[in-house]
Amino acid sequence: METATFLRFSFLLFIVLFLFAQPWYWYPLSIPGFLGGSQSSPWFTSKDQLLQKLLSILETQVNISEEHVTDVPHHPLDPLTIQEINKVRSILSSYAPFVNSYPTYHTLSLDEPNKSQVLAWKKGDPLPPRKAFVIALLNDQSHVLSVDLDWGQVTSHAINSGSGYPLLTSDDMSTAIQVTLSNVEFDETIRERGVSFSDLACIPLSTGWYGPNEEGRRIIKVQCFSSEGTSNFYMRPIEGLTVTVDVDKKEVVKISNKGRGIPVPKGTNTDYRYQPDGKAPEMEPLNPISMEQPNGPSFKIEDGHIVRWANWVFHLKADARAGLVISRAMVRDSETGELRSVMYRGFPSELFVPYMDPDEAWYFKSYLDAGEFGLGLTAMSLVPLNDCPRHAYYMDGIFVASDGKPFVQQKIICVFEKYAGDISWRHSEISPFGSAAREARPKVTLVTRLAATVGNYDYVFDWEFQTDGLIHIKVALSGMLMVKGTTQQNMDDEVSNKDKMTGPLVSENVIGVIHDHYITYHLDMDIDGTNNSFVKVSLVKLETLPGESPRKSYLKAERHVAKTEKDAQIKLKLYDPAEFHVINPSRLSRLGNPAGYKIVPSGNDASLLDHNDPPQLRSAFTNNQIWVTPYNRTELWAGGLLAYQSKGDDTLAVWSERNRPIEEKDITLWYTLGIHHIPCQEDYPIMPTVTAGFDLKPVNFFERNPILRAAPILEKDLPVCQPTASF
Amino acid sequence: METATFLRFSFLLFIVLFLFAQPWYWYPLSIPGFLGGSQSSPWFTSKDQLLQKLLSILETQVNISEEHVTDVPHHPLDPLTIQEINKVRSILSSYAPFVNSYPTYHTLSLDEPNKSQVLAWKKGDPLPPRKAFVIALLNDQSHVLSVDLDWGQVTSHAINSGSGYPLLTSDDMSTAIQVTLSNVEFDETIRERGVSFSDLACIPLSTGWYGPNEEGRRIIKVQCFSSEGTSNFYMRPIEGLTVTVDVDKKEVVKISNKGRGIPVPKGTNTDYRYQPDGKAPEMEPLNPISMEQPNGPSFKIEDGHIVRWANWVFHLKADARAGLVISRAMVRDSETGELRSVMYRGFPSELFVPYMDPDEAWYFKSYLDAGEFGLGLTAMSLVPLNDCPRHAYYMDGIFVASDGKPFVQQKIICVFEKYAGDISWRHSEISPFGSAAREARPKVTLVTRLAATVGNYDYVFDWEFQTDGLIHIKVALSGMLMVKGTTQQNMDDEVSNKDKMTGPLVSENVIGVIHDHYITYHLDMDIDGTNNSFVKVSLVKLETLPGESPRKSYLKAERHVAKTEKDAQIKLKLYDPAEFHVINPSRLSRLGNPAGYKIVPSGNDASLLDHNDPPQLRSAFTNNQIWVTPYNRTELWAGGLLAYQSKGDDTLAVWSERNRPIEEKDITLWYTLGIHHIPCQEDYPIMPTVTAGFDLKPVNFFERNPILRAAPILEKDLPVCQPTASF
Repeated sequence: METATFLRFSFLLFIVLFLFAQPWYWYPLSIPGFLGGSQSSPWFTSKDQLLQKLLSILETQVNISEEHVTDVPHHPLDPLTIQEINKVRSILSSYAPFVNSYPTYHTLSLDEPNKSQVLAWKKGDPLPPRKAFVIALLNDQSHVLSVDLDWGQVTSHAINSGSGYPLLTSDDMSTAIQVTLSNVEFDETIRERGVSFSDLACIPLSTGWYGPNEEGRRIIKVQCFSSEGTSNFYMRPIEGLTVTVDVDKKEVVKISNKGRGIPVPKGTNTDYRYQPDGKAPEMEPLNPISMEQPNGPSFKIEDGHIVRWANWVFHLKADARAGLVISRAMVRDSETGELRSVMYRGFPSELFVPYMDPDEAWYFKSYLDAGEFGLGLTAMSLVPLNDCPRHAYYMDGIFVASDGKPFVQQKIICVFEKYAGDISWRHSEISPFGSAAREARPKVTLVTRLAATVGNYDYVFDWEFQTDGLIHIKVALSGMLMVKGTTQQNMDDEVSNKDKMTGPLVSENVIGVIHDHYITYHLDMDIDGTNNSFVKVSLVKLETLPGESPRKSYLKAERHVAKTEKDAQIKLKLYDPAEFHVINPSRLSRLGNPAGYKIVPSGNDASLLDHNDPPQLRSAFTNNQIWVTPYNRTELWAGGLLAYQSKGDDTLAVWSERNRPIEEKDITLWYTLGIHHIPCQEDYPIMPTVTAGFDLKPVNFFERNPILRAAPILEKDLPVCQPTASF
Repeated sequence: METATFLRFSFLLFIVLFLFAQPWYWYPLSIPGFLGGSQSSPWFTSKDQLLQKLLSILETQVNISEEHVTDVPHHPLDPLTIQEINKVRSILSSYAPFVNSYPTYHTLSLDEPNKSQVLAWKKGDPLPPRKAFVIALLNDQSHVLSVDLDWGQVTSHAINSGSGYPLLTSDDMSTAIQVTLSNVEFDETIRERGVSFSDLACIPLSTGWYGPNEEGRRIIKVQCFSSEGTSNFYMRPIEGLTVTVDVDKKEVVKISNKGRGIPVPKGTNTDYRYQPDGKAPEMEPLNPISMEQPNGPSFKIEDGHIVRWANWVFHLKADARAGLVISRAMVRDSETGELRSVMYRGFPSELFVPYMDPDEAWYFKSYLDAGEFGLGLTAMSLVPLNDCPRHAYYMDGIFVASDGKPFVQQKIICVFEKYAGDISWRHSEISPFGSAAREARPKVTLVTRLAATVGNYDYVFDWEFQTDGLIHIKVALSGMLMVKGTTQQNMDDEVSNKDKMTGPLVSENVIGVIHDHYITYHLDMDIDGTNNSFVKVSLVKLETLPGESPRKSYLKAERHVAKTEKDAQIKLKLYDPAEFHVINPSRLSRLGNPAGYKIVPSGNDASLLDHNDPPQLRSAFTNNQIWVTPYNRTELWAGGLLAYQSKGDDTLAVWSERNRPIEEKDITLWYTLGIHHIPCQEDYPIMPTVTAGFDLKPVNFFERNPILRAAPILEKDLPVCQPTASF
């Protein structure tokens, strides 16, 4: 064991012994920084489980402490390395305003170079100056800084004057729970509710913004569950008990106990962990099936972040807030071999999840999961062979804890080649030449994936690249419902407030509260460069003149180029159909059609909340399914830079009020994917995946079908496979 | 070679020699019945290619003549066997009204037993009486008959009095082309247009109904293309030349030649047939990839048509008109093991494809592909390894030619198990028990597929079954565009009528005409039996009372049970969201929720044509995305039983005008999937697949998630694979 590791181990052992001497029953699992453990889930355990936990963290630590320590950046968009993060912290520790104070780091990530620098850069060139973007809290103020690593100094520093706070850290979350659990009144309430402390599992919830009462300080609401008899404590809520905690003062502001008389649901048969000798479900067993690539996959990962596959190349990285980020996506032209720009950057910018229940324990549940918790920070390691198939490549995320120290979140992104038995093009006929033409080509694609688990819900984010130039963007939802305890055991029970049920019963004493999900994507399209326009191609019905034709009506395409932002604020409408193109008006095909990509919506849902309902103010970016803004390096986060408890003063909707010109400019497309969810019994105790998505599809980008000459799968390409058990 | 085959060979040789003595240049390729060849594509060749063609047909004939001859039915819904079809013909040849006349058979398929008989039947019971449903044309009248095979007689016979004719036969199509090609004026026109006869490829197009001029007789419109230099003649239209043919009188009614001056597009590089030594596209080659199942697939096919997989069982067959039909789909309850009914029958009932161009050569293009051509009749053999993956099972279709003789369409359905690297459920967290919970389960599904090629367009119909009870229904579109010749070579060209372009240029002199596709599915849902209701579960916004809550608004679900048909005529609306359930009100879960399945739309488009525009009258079933009708054994075809040249007097919309009760009844759900298509250059010369679909998803059908106990993929399940080339 190396010296560094030995020292850590000794220190840890000391900590363990020290803790056992404390009267505390509780300690946060998320011990920041130097342990390198996962920061995502500050669950609390009882003291007697603590040692077990610490030892498992230590084991992980030994395995990963040596990885990434020597990483250096290779591409201007590469995330900050461990060394760079340490350097930022060092620079800031001697930065005058921070000397002798202890700011907490809520964001510390790459401050991407200007787009022009990135576009001009090519491999072999020195990197543009490396910079860090920092949001730190100090003395209740949010400090937004840019730190130049090459110069070794802070180059910009502003104190946020608007509403809102940065992402929660795991320390914040631990604190909220620790404060709750140490509260005497709370302890008594738990006893009253009949839950034993060793079974208590509490979670930190963001509060949104609901008026002046909760302004001016950072608050977290804590709610608790019983984990007695099951790992699936989410199905056993202690209903109606909400503790409001001032995170910075570390004090309980309010305890609301509206759930007296509501039993904790039993949670029978809710455990979801794999039980190899458990009872099999009533179905014929499935034979093993896998995607096999005997010569290995076709994609290459260069310098840790550049993905090359078929005719695509792009930069791939994990981001603490956005999760998975695709940058510099370019596709090779099938006729000229030229690598052509499609998308400068694409990522999920915000994830709005409002619950539909106005009562005291529920009204505030209107999360902005990216801006409050971070889609990268909440991503845990993917499960091999099940989250991603056999030949997947895994990528780690390097994130930063509240003390500014880096840690590694292992294997949170996977990349794999996919064949699902689908067809990329086909045609059959009896040809005039005497034989049948039967041509079909398989669809083989490349998938990049990350799964964020924000508390109960799991979100699997996919970006799937096809050889015909299409990018399919998909989200799969799984995990657990957020459920509400009730006295009802059957829909027929006569109970008070039955008409106030905010969702159906999904189990005895368990209501699945209706809720929505809105994922807003930031899609900085750069079609053959940055001179783009947004064109709405409407299909309108025309009527023929009397006598003109036996047809009375037909559709015609009308092109409207958006001049300003308001022209591109789109609500989709089934009976007012259109295509939505991002084109490069200065790049025409040989036929004179402008090169473009269109966004093709699929299933979608829209928010119906009042526009001035506080959660909808904060999520006003969901008022339209499509927006287009002029490129602006600061306009990344649809809910605003500082989204936690924000009042909605810095959202995409607010920026877009300026109605700026967007014609023949560098523009950014925003698309919101919405899903209404009325729970049902099949969602209990864990949800089968529900998926939603949309496409970015080339439209007159290529001169013709780019995969006309693709080869079919031939018998000789198939592998010879045998079950492993036969060896 | 068997005697029968030898005699056929000799006869064929005689025919060949006889033909070569004729002055004709032309002969239909589709020689009915006894040759057993494919009936789907009556292309014409010149005499010097005829021998080649006949020999290839003969080769196929030798291979397939022995298959299926001894088949007997095992299930009440099994299609008519070869022996049964021969028996029907024999019965009808001695049926008084048909004696000494020669009716042409346009439909001859199973007349399914009454649903009550099918539901009561179980394996081992004798089959209900086998009956045939026949539509025959005789003396310009459509005769609709039912023939009882057990009794050996006709049990019902009606002469159609409404508008419309049955499906075209390949004889009809051959006739139309033969008549066209024999017409002197037409021949002169071809010469004028500069196309040589040996390159001529003509296709038969349905005419729709456009007023009295074309009523009272069966007509087909013929248009032609040049196949010089390419197999992809669709890209080389002889624009504006339309021959209207009276199919029964075998005469040309009208020749319209509006395309003088419009060149035949060159069609350079439009061939799509695989060229192994051709130039590879500008992309990195892809390594072989396949779905491997070293222990073979898990599904079983019993008695030729019953599919058993995981927790599903259903009957699968090919139908001449519907293509792929799923019947008696049942899923095993994961708690009780009981096999429960989900869907009695599901199939695509009609496929409406209107083109958006009012001019003389285009106005009539408003196909009803199921009722005019037949989605089964137009399905050719699937391409192994490319249309369907390695371990797929293939099923043949037994159809009937115009002379009443059976023929086999081989391998038009495939069944395969699929793993695409997707996830069926997952959850991660740091559990309170000291270790991380990371659970994920793979999504393995069963796909049944058929690909219909109606002329230029290929439609791949999928029904995909999931172990969580969900059925995903999907259509993938590929093949060729129907294109229009033009003098334009560039969007900037100054040409007359430029503003009348009915689509963009997709190549020089080639316009991709805008068009729609609407696939209307017949979904006879039988949720736990036939006592069902349709429930629209609307999400409505409620506002809180002043002071009630810090939330101003939230959504609530409101259930409306449809009482009559009008209550269930649904146009989808993004800002008026709802779920659409088919429930069994007499089967409640233990919690009191009625067992149900919901239809979950995904991307969709709607028809904007005037309701009284002739094509929209015939396709009035696309005026709503959802309809519900009471079960009626005669209401199968949304466009009417006799759709060819129909006036729309027998559509789903007409039936539903009766506004019949649909509450607590046996009901049928109809769903229309629509796709607007504005072509682009990528669609030239063959289209990368575009897909659309929807789901049927259990809602409170199961007491809980049915796949909670599913197993993950384990390392030991993976096969050991090596490239074949290494052997």
